[in-house]
Amino acid sequence: MEAAKRFLLVLFLVSLLSISTATTTRKFRARKPCKRMVFYFHDIIYNGKNAKNATAAIVGAPAWGNRTILSGQNHFGDLVVFDDPITLDNNLHSTPVGRAQGFYIYDKKDIFTAWLGFSFVFNSTQHKGSINFAGADPLMNKTRDISVIGGTGDFFMARGVATLMTDAFEGEVYFRLRTDIKLYECW
Amino acid sequence: MEAAKRFLLVLFLVSLLSISTATTTRKFRARKPCKRMVFYFHDIIYNGKNAKNATAAIVGAPAWGNRTILSGQNHFGDLVVFDDPITLDNNLHSTPVGRAQGFYIYDKKDIFTAWLGFSFVFNSTQHKGSINFAGADPLMNKTRDISVIGGTGDFFMARGVATLMTDAFEGEVYFRLRTDIKLYECW
Amino acid sequence: MEAAKRFLLVLFLVSLLSISTATTTRKFRARKPCKRMVFYFHDIIYNGKNAKNATAAIVGAPAWGNRTILSGQNHFGDLVVFDDPITLDNNLHSTPVGRAQGFYIYDKKDIFTAWLGFSFVFNSTQHKGSINFAGADPLMNKTRDISVIGGTGDFFMARGVATLMTDAFEGEVYFRLRTDIKLYECW
Repeated sequence: MEAAKRFLLVLFLVSLLSISTATTTRKFRARKPCKRMVFYFHDIIYNGKNAKNATAAIVGAPAWGNRTILSGQNHFGDLVVFDDPITLDNNLHSTPVGRAQGFYIYDKKDIFTAWLGFSFVFNSTQHKGSINFAGADPLMNKTRDISVIGGTGDFFMARGVATLMTDAFEGEVYFRLRTDIKLYECW
Repeated sequence: MEAAKRFLLVLFLVSLLSISTATTTRKFRARKPCKRMVFYFHDIIYNGKNAKNATAAIVGAPAWGNRTILSGQNHFGDLVVFDDPITLDNNLHSTPVGRAQGFYIYDKKDIFTAWLGFSFVFNSTQHKGSINFAGADPLMNKTRDISVIGGTGDFFMARGVATLMTDAFEGEVYFRLRTDIKLYECW
Repeated sequence: MEAAKRFLLVLFLVSLLSISTATTTRKFRARKPCKRMVFYFHDIIYNGKNAKNATAAIVGAPAWGNRTILSGQNHFGDLVVFDDPITLDNNLHSTPVGRAQGFYIYDKKDIFTAWLGFSFVFNSTQHKGSINFAGADPLMNKTRDISVIGGTGDFFMARGVATLMTDAFEGEVYFRLRTDIKLYECW
């Protein structure tokens, strides 16, 4: 009977464990990414002279601005559409592994800030599918977080956070963003 | 005692089962939609002559474009706002069951591609609420997936994937998209 | 033996309970917010005369509109960028606790309706981080729901629904939105 009692005790503890596992599922998923990837993307804004190389263009501007030159007041009101190459390192001339496609809008008069809606689109042997992003980008901060709001293909139903860092900025024509993608929901 | 032992064994297996169920909850939800719906929506772009019928209009364009005619270079930079009827079949003249509202931006110079942000808005006896979408639409592909990023009302907290298919395309004025919505998170 | 049998029965029931808990995790999370917050934000649209006070500006407009005056036909096609103060009460002059940043597009000709993409950005002792929103805003309805599609910082991975209510509307220059945020996924 001693053995049986000990066995019962073990069983009981196991049951308790299974209950606590069930009710705290979400906490177990938090804070440790199930997938992490770092990419760079490169944005060359059309400025009237670089039509061949440009990967982005101003398509909306405030009443006091135009669509060739970024407006004053920290570009407030400029809406930029982009189709930027994504690379694995910080070299603009590396073979792209995908395209960053979408838009940003400068949305503040007294400092550089933008709102982003875009996707990473992959169609290579390594990755097929897309990751969708949205969020505020206070681009004077060294790093800033936006949301991964969904994904398709290899990134089916993904959710997470992406940490952006401006890796280079040349005049008002070129910038490069380091994107550290941390997915916390992977299917 | 034999019976008791057998019973203990069963109990133990049941406990194990409950543990594995708890820790793999997310996998059980994956890959099989909890809700699936197919809709069509119809986009008639304003071209300067069809103000009465148009359901969409260009509101942003690159420096080299205008807001009446879609620009060259695969419409790169054109931002289009729409309020399109949703129907259950592919007939533009069927009674709409809702409205597709939002925008798309053509974002690539060398091929047709767009970025979409929009909602399906329902207010009928059949459906009340909205489904929100975002994602890249490489519209030359036969089918392409975007994300369902949220929902309200009947579609409270929905997440999933929507497969778009261009069902018709007439010149640069009319297109019809078949939208196969697969929700993988239903509350 | 009687005691042992009773104990076995209890164990069995506990096991059953743990199984049902595991398989219905999602239902337990539904319908009761894990976090609820009410904020107000204040939008002052640039109209050619209020450059100093304006917090928003038209940056896209249909072919028949311009970027200083909201267009006819219920502003259909006007794209507005904003950086609005967020307050805890409905007083424009209260100390802001954050900024609402993003855009809306009026998307319907025969009634006021807009599509919203924006963030609440907080950087105070009380809240640090951002909440990202997207959805349709049929602004003639007393209340309307949009989606919380993600969050960062204190609002890491948040999802939910935000109920908007127009709290004030003065001419075509100022409006104030009450935003009742209900998060149903908190990490």
